[in-house]
This record gives sequence, C-alpha cells and structure tokens, in this order.
Amino acid sequence: MKPKFPYYAVIFTNYRTAGDNGYQQTSERMMELAAQQPGYLGVDHAREETGITISYWESLRAIADWKAQADHLLAQKKGRETWYSEYRVRICRVEKEYAFSSDDTPA
Amino acid sequence: MKPKFPYYAVIFTNYRTAGDNGYQQTSERMMELAAQQPGYLGVDHAREETGITISYWESLRAIADWKAQADHLLAQKKGRETWYSEYRVRICRVEKEYAFSSDDTPA
Repeated sequence: MKPKFPYYAVIFTNYRTAGDNGYQQTSERMMELAAQQPGYLGVDHAREETGITISYWESLRAIADWKAQADHLLAQKKGRETWYSEYRVRICRVEKEYAFSSDDTPA
Repeated sequence: MKPKFPYYAVIFTNYRTAGDNGYQQTSERMMELAAQQPGYLGVDHAREETGITISYWESLRAIADWKAQADHLLAQKKGRETWYSEYRVRICRVEKEYAFSSDDTPA
C-alpha cells in the first residue's frame, strides 16, 4: 500500500459479547464489502481481549459512504443490539508513516 | 479517556519473528514506561497474525519525546535486529470519535 498523504484511518476498538450469534459470517462479509468501496485502501485486524480493526481510506467522504452503506448499516445495528458490549470509533488523519522490513537491511 | 481534540494516535502494526527472545518482558516494560511519559493518554493492543498497538498522545511533541526516550530507543533497535520481520508506524491526528456501550442503551 503506497497511499498519497494525507489519507485516513478508522480505528474501531471493541469488546464482544459471549457467543458468535452470526458475528463471524457478517464480519467476513463486511470485510469483503468494504474492500469494494471507492476509496478503500486496506485493513489491519487483530483480536485478543480487545478487538481492533483499522481500515484505511483515501478521504473522509469514502469513510462516510461506507458508514452509510446499506448492508453495513444493518451490521452496525446488529452490532449494537447483539455483538458488542462496547465499541469506540476514531476517525484519524494519517500524517506520517514509516516502515521497516528485515528484507531491506543487511543481515 | 476523555481527551481534548485534536489528539494523536500512533498505529504500530507488526509481524513477529519466531521465538520470544526477551520480547515479552521488554514489551511489558515499554508499556509501563510509555504510561509515565508526559502527554500519554492510553493504549489499545491485540495480536493475532498481525500485532497492533495503538498509543494515544496529547501532542506530536509527546510522541517525538517517547520515540527518543533512551530505553525505548534500545527496544526499537532490538525490534529491528531481532523481534520484528516487518513493522509500520503511522502517526495520526484523531479528528472525530464516538463510542457505544450497551450499558447506555435501554435493554
């Protein structure tokens, strides 16, 4: 991913309720749908006690469009009703970035 | 955490090499030390295939100071030499935030 600056990150941190209740299937479907949205750049995800999903976008408009996407709206509703005991969404502007890969450095 | 806007997030995504090699102990120590830095607001962490640590800060200055902290510099060096095959650091300005808690809504 070689994005143009600035781009945007949506940090979604959450705590799940007990049981799957259709969460996994919908979660995977949302990942697929998000990737089809205009302005989508990528995603990072991990869950231990806290679940963290960070999606990256070209613009605030792209983020707003995904938030308002019909299937995603239903998933958000189900999220509040069933899947999450708590969550937090932070909309961020990525100002600077640097990367390391052990392949790039002398052994 | 009720921060004043804007505040800043450092998104640290990484892939670990095999074996602990002192990683866990240093990681916990860095969490303790970061929490003592001026301008520190909090942290979120989870690891599955990808490791994600997001730390939150009052200012870019606070982020720069933590990056230059002596113990942290040593840990960063060890990270490149031993613990991480890849990592990426994104410095972000948090522009907007909203939260949900099931405790806040009618049953």
